[in-house]
Amino acid sequence: MKSLAAVGEFPFIEAIRRIAAASSERCGDTRRRIVLGIGDDAACVRLRRDAVVTVDCVVEGVHFRRDWARPPDLGLRAFRAAVSDLSACGAEPRFALLALTMPPAYSVKEALGFVRGLVRDAEGVGVALVGGNVSAAPLFTATLTIIGEAGPRVLRRDAARAGDVIYVTGPLGGSAAGVALLARGIVRGPLQAIYRRPPLRVAAGRALARLSGIGAVIDVSDGLVQDLSHVCDASGVSAAIDVPSVPMPRALIRAGAERGVGHVADPRRLALAGGEDYELLLTVRAKTAQSGRVEKLLAASGCRAHRIGRVVRRRRDAVVDAATGSALAGGFTHFGGRK
Amino acid sequence: MKSLAAVGEFPFIEAIRRIAAASSERCGDTRRRIVLGIGDDAACVRLRRDAVVTVDCVVEGVHFRRDWARPPDLGLRAFRAAVSDLSACGAEPRFALLALTMPPAYSVKEALGFVRGLVRDAEGVGVALVGGNVSAAPLFTATLTIIGEAGPRVLRRDAARAGDVIYVTGPLGGSAAGVALLARGIVRGPLQAIYRRPPLRVAAGRALARLSGIGAVIDVSDGLVQDLSHVCDASGVSAAIDVPSVPMPRALIRAGAERGVGHVADPRRLALAGGEDYELLLTVRAKTAQSGRVEKLLAASGCRAHRIGRVVRRRRDAVVDAATGSALAGGFTHFGGRK
Repeated sequence: MKSLAAVGEFPFIEAIRRIAAASSERCGDTRRRIVLGIGDDAACVRLRRDAVVTVDCVVEGVHFRRDWARPPDLGLRAFRAAVSDLSACGAEPRFALLALTMPPAYSVKEALGFVRGLVRDAEGVGVALVGGNVSAAPLFTATLTIIGEAGPRVLRRDAARAGDVIYVTGPLGGSAAGVALLARGIVRGPLQAIYRRPPLRVAAGRALARLSGIGAVIDVSDGLVQDLSHVCDASGVSAAIDVPSVPMPRALIRAGAERGVGHVADPRRLALAGGEDYELLLTVRAKTAQSGRVEKLLAASGCRAHRIGRVVRRRRDAVVDAATGSALAGGFTHFGGRK
Repeated sequence: MKSLAAVGEFPFIEAIRRIAAASSERCGDTRRRIVLGIGDDAACVRLRRDAVVTVDCVVEGVHFRRDWARPPDLGLRAFRAAVSDLSACGAEPRFALLALTMPPAYSVKEALGFVRGLVRDAEGVGVALVGGNVSAAPLFTATLTIIGEAGPRVLRRDAARAGDVIYVTGPLGGSAAGVALLARGIVRGPLQAIYRRPPLRVAAGRALARLSGIGAVIDVSDGLVQDLSHVCDASGVSAAIDVPSVPMPRALIRAGAERGVGHVADPRRLALAGGEDYELLLTVRAKTAQSGRVEKLLAASGCRAHRIGRVVRRRRDAVVDAATGSALAGGFTHFGGRK
């Protein structure tokens, strides 16, 4: 397997440019908005509405291990993690820029596999890779910038109000359970598959931006309770979670019951605090929640509306268990590990 | 000195948010275009023209060593290196997103010093920090995305034509000489200062985008010969450099003549192939070059137009010495070291 050092920086960039150029031909309308793509000092793109921009980084050894998934799956995962932020804002993703750092001994085949997986998945939602950066470093990192167009409104995390109903767009905890199994060396199974293939909520986010009666929206990346506490802190409210109603993947419930190597301890805790689920978490004004429109709209966008609690007036704790009133906490933080 | 692990991810992000918020108040017109800044899933910004976007990454141990400059200087440097790509496209930089990776033991004071230096310098050219990402990793990296607005035309590297005159906006080789001295443990001196404070060519780039008769433009980041060869390859031409006319900082000429610890070997080679100069390299149609307009315009933009050669018809070698016709080569490449 040829290393990056053997191939050289510029031929490697040229290989990425070719992958991106071929893919952007399949990106429909997005293609026509690229004034200047990969190969110049900067990219130039045409946007019809306000720009919504996010940047997200994955680090080998922190966010993944190379034996946890094939390179194209890791690329797909990096894209879905990043685009999730635009979905949470209700934006339409359009363009991506990829900054890679890699050791000179890194395999070109693996690096291009990562890029291909990422580009292929991006193309599926009309996102074209238009630029990036490549740098030598002692470890593999991929930093993805995604630029999209704002919807009729920009969904934000500070718009929850007491009385709102809280929804989540899919089951939680599967990804964290997958990581736990992968870390134990068990590479196959439905939970590992959930980790490798987070959901895409682009259509759901765009649909929510068009619906009136939506409060706050955030994506579940650090764990339900922690992300919900961000919404509560930003909105000056608290949230009461009906814990048994938090949806979990069937495979996670099974793994919790199983005895033996496939056992996953405390599935409920993983659903509340596991992280990397990339589902949308939203609050909906009571009247809109009663109308059933959210359920219909999310079903039409390929996911499901699960009611999991209520927004209440601010109290000491941001997020509490609705049944007991006791505080819920936990979730992923960088530098500090798990709370 | 408190570590990131002791302070925690979210208080660290909050400290960055405050630095960015205070700074964006001083960013004039840019401030009014921020629909949603740091603190939500993504940033939302308003652009009046096509978006010009670049991403650039600095890695500790590859692009700099921590003892080479104070944290604010490293932040400034990261900004100037990134914004240079937008200058080369003639765009007006507006918004920045910063993705940081750092070890948990990293000093918060140093990390915030880096951010402050970056934000302060960005503010000087009307660029506001509107978003970013923070992640734990075994080493410090900073990936900066800069979004700007296109000028009346987007300057590109594939627009050189045989007959064009080649210009550069300032002296070359000082930064590479500074690195050589820093690597030898000599931390003070004018060349080290050039390394620490690359030029800003935002005004020059924007002015060039308004002038007719400009051919190709690129920034000198990997070394004059290598960046010029990118222009030549993209444009299907070659370039003949009048080597003695390539400008060098006085301190570099002196360091070449000096005997002793401050000696720098082969200043001319550093000017041709050193890299990280961040001056603009441009080709100008012969008629415009004769008019003296480029000289006037660049002088009004705070730099100087140095004529260093001619674009010629494509021959075997992309860049040659005008006096001898022999090929010139060399420059920085990641993974492969120097050619």
